[in-house]
Amino acid sequence: MKKKEFHYTYKMKIAYDGTPFSGWQVQKNARSIQELIEKAVRIAVKEEVSVIGSGRTDAGVHAMAQVAHFNTLNPIKSENVCFSLNGMLPKEIRILSLEETYLGFHAQLSAKSKTYHYHVSLKKTLLPFKRFYSHHIPQTFDLNAVRQAIPFFLGTHDYTSFANEAHSGSAAKDPVRTLSRLDLIENDGELRLEFEADGFLYKMVRNIAGTLFEIGVGKKTAQQVPEILAAKDRRKAGQAAPAQGLFLVDVHY
Amino acid sequence: MKKKEFHYTYKMKIAYDGTPFSGWQVQKNARSIQELIEKAVRIAVKEEVSVIGSGRTDAGVHAMAQVAHFNTLNPIKSENVCFSLNGMLPKEIRILSLEETYLGFHAQLSAKSKTYHYHVSLKKTLLPFKRFYSHHIPQTFDLNAVRQAIPFFLGTHDYTSFANEAHSGSAAKDPVRTLSRLDLIENDGELRLEFEADGFLYKMVRNIAGTLFEIGVGKKTAQQVPEILAAKDRRKAGQAAPAQGLFLVDVHY
Repeated sequence: MKKKEFHYTYKMKIAYDGTPFSGWQVQKNARSIQELIEKAVRIAVKEEVSVIGSGRTDAGVHAMAQVAHFNTLNPIKSENVCFSLNGMLPKEIRILSLEETYLGFHAQLSAKSKTYHYHVSLKKTLLPFKRFYSHHIPQTFDLNAVRQAIPFFLGTHDYTSFANEAHSGSAAKDPVRTLSRLDLIENDGELRLEFEADGFLYKMVRNIAGTLFEIGVGKKTAQQVPEILAAKDRRKAGQAAPAQGLFLVDVHY
Repeated sequence: MKKKEFHYTYKMKIAYDGTPFSGWQVQKNARSIQELIEKAVRIAVKEEVSVIGSGRTDAGVHAMAQVAHFNTLNPIKSENVCFSLNGMLPKEIRILSLEETYLGFHAQLSAKSKTYHYHVSLKKTLLPFKRFYSHHIPQTFDLNAVRQAIPFFLGTHDYTSFANEAHSGSAAKDPVRTLSRLDLIENDGELRLEFEADGFLYKMVRNIAGTLFEIGVGKKTAQQVPEILAAKDRRKAGQAAPAQGLFLVDVHY
């Protein structure tokens, strides 16, 4: 059988509330975001397309602008299909945009870098509206200690100490990444960490965030970060921060 | 039987996500916020107290800082009780503070004014994170028309045209209120209306907001507002804006 020759590539920007899903990636016996979108796209474009994301996000992790692509044999009316997809999908998933892009564009392989935000509430009581969108740290929190730790993470490093082993065999073999930006923004007890890198290892954002939070509450010190990095041992770093504080904010091409 | 003599009055600030509740007020066969809090307080303070709020909020309406009070025969340890209440209550309801106040303080009758915010997204697609916390108006929206309408609402008026009849007999007989502030704040497609008045008639905020939205989308004009007010006829005003955009933000004493 002749391999299908695709002629059109479409790029989607997708926002989702990860709370009720098993994560981005298709899994057996679980409700994944990728699967719901792929099913809807197949109905809308009347082809058995595959929807490929820029990367997976774990259960409970959110996206402001996940990017995905699919190839088709026939051209589609992007605006109509986008409207129709949002009609089929649950309100927790919204297609923000859908447009044709160059043939050969690949949401994962063409990505140059990604931005993630991690949200924390430092208030005594977590507001109900933030319970699915923010981690809560009511303990005394030393922002300056966290600020001192941040520069140690920046630049090009082997991040093995901050990477979990992936469940599937798809994990990157090269644990070296370049973290080009790690900003801490604090406003009235609400904290946001902004991460930008050419790529992230599995659970890398949550493991770095979790280590920074252990520094914030005094369980670790900023000065330990270089030795944690050098150890290349996941057990040396802090616990992963919970999924609900994490947002995939942008994918850069 | 001798009437109980209360000796202590306690004031609570409460935040809640109104989404899963039937509203503030105790109702038969419904899960009200007041009832859940009252039950928890009775367990925590070991007295059959009544919890009185500053006023009811409808099903789906949220609060950043609802205020309520209760009277007791015996003093309580405020901080411990607050902690214990948050342990008993669902995460959608949080007691932000609990403190003793002067005997005779009444959350409803002592209130001088209240602040409500109404949130709207004007973006083409409503972000999933806002689906329970914002009204969505994807149509072309004329902010200037809304800005022109706002001054007509300010000051002291008979707001009968913007008041629904309350279900119970507890409605205020006097429909005159003073709206001291109505601000419109717009930022990147997110709109917030801020209302401050000495009191609000039933559904008054949602009816004014709904009328302003009809002006925004061109179904009504700013110039019609004075005649709508003068008509003292609910049918002349716009439809009530949906509950999920509304937040009780502050009660001033």
